[in-house]
Amino acid sequence: MFDPASLKYDAHGLVPAIAQDHATGEVLMMAWMNAEAVAKTLATGKVTYWSRSRQNFWVKGESSGHVQKLVDFRLDCDRDCLLVLVEQTGPACHTNRRSCFYTSVRDGDEVELMAPEAG
Amino acid sequence: MFDPASLKYDAHGLVPAIAQDHATGEVLMMAWMNAEAVAKTLATGKVTYWSRSRQNFWVKGESSGHVQKLVDFRLDCDRDCLLVLVEQTGPACHTNRRSCFYTSVRDGDEVELMAPEAG
Repeated sequence: MFDPASLKYDAHGLVPAIAQDHATGEVLMMAWMNAEAVAKTLATGKVTYWSRSRQNFWVKGESSGHVQKLVDFRLDCDRDCLLVLVEQTGPACHTNRRSCFYTSVRDGDEVELMAPEAG
Repeated sequence: MFDPASLKYDAHGLVPAIAQDHATGEVLMMAWMNAEAVAKTLATGKVTYWSRSRQNFWVKGESSGHVQKLVDFRLDCDRDCLLVLVEQTGPACHTNRRSCFYTSVRDGDEVELMAPEAG
């Protein structure tokens, strides 16, 4: 039986959660969860983070429509990092790009790998 | 021109770095880098973290041989999380599993997805 309290949270009661597209393997974003966000994510199947800036739950896509449907919920060997495999509707990034990791460092320069989606 | 100082570090001077297998897309592990570890990773092509427990640089695989050769170095929209695409030699996890994310939560129970590799 999995207990969200069994995870190792940082001093703010948070663990990093990596969201990965379950079909393509693309890493979409990283955000944070507290124990209650973990419980909500598992109970609802809607990936729910804790917003550090708003100090509130953040049901991903609740306002934008760019929801993340939970496909698989994983934890790492140290129980201090999560990997959520998701079905991502629309772009994951607030810049309207598919992934937040759209900048690469190549030969010392920053290169933009993807453009914002139309919409 | 990319400057490691342009990243947003936490109160401990660290950013989370997600390591992903460049060929399979598998998320292997998450660890931390400080500005100097970022610079070392880019300069050497050997993924180098900062060990919070040992308070020292951690050239991944230096003792185990399970090195990570940098293939692409990415940062996210907020510049506070890194994604390193790597060529992973051997298992990434200290438990000898390919990935640290070998535990899944399914129907409320923890399920082990992969066994340690022989060796």
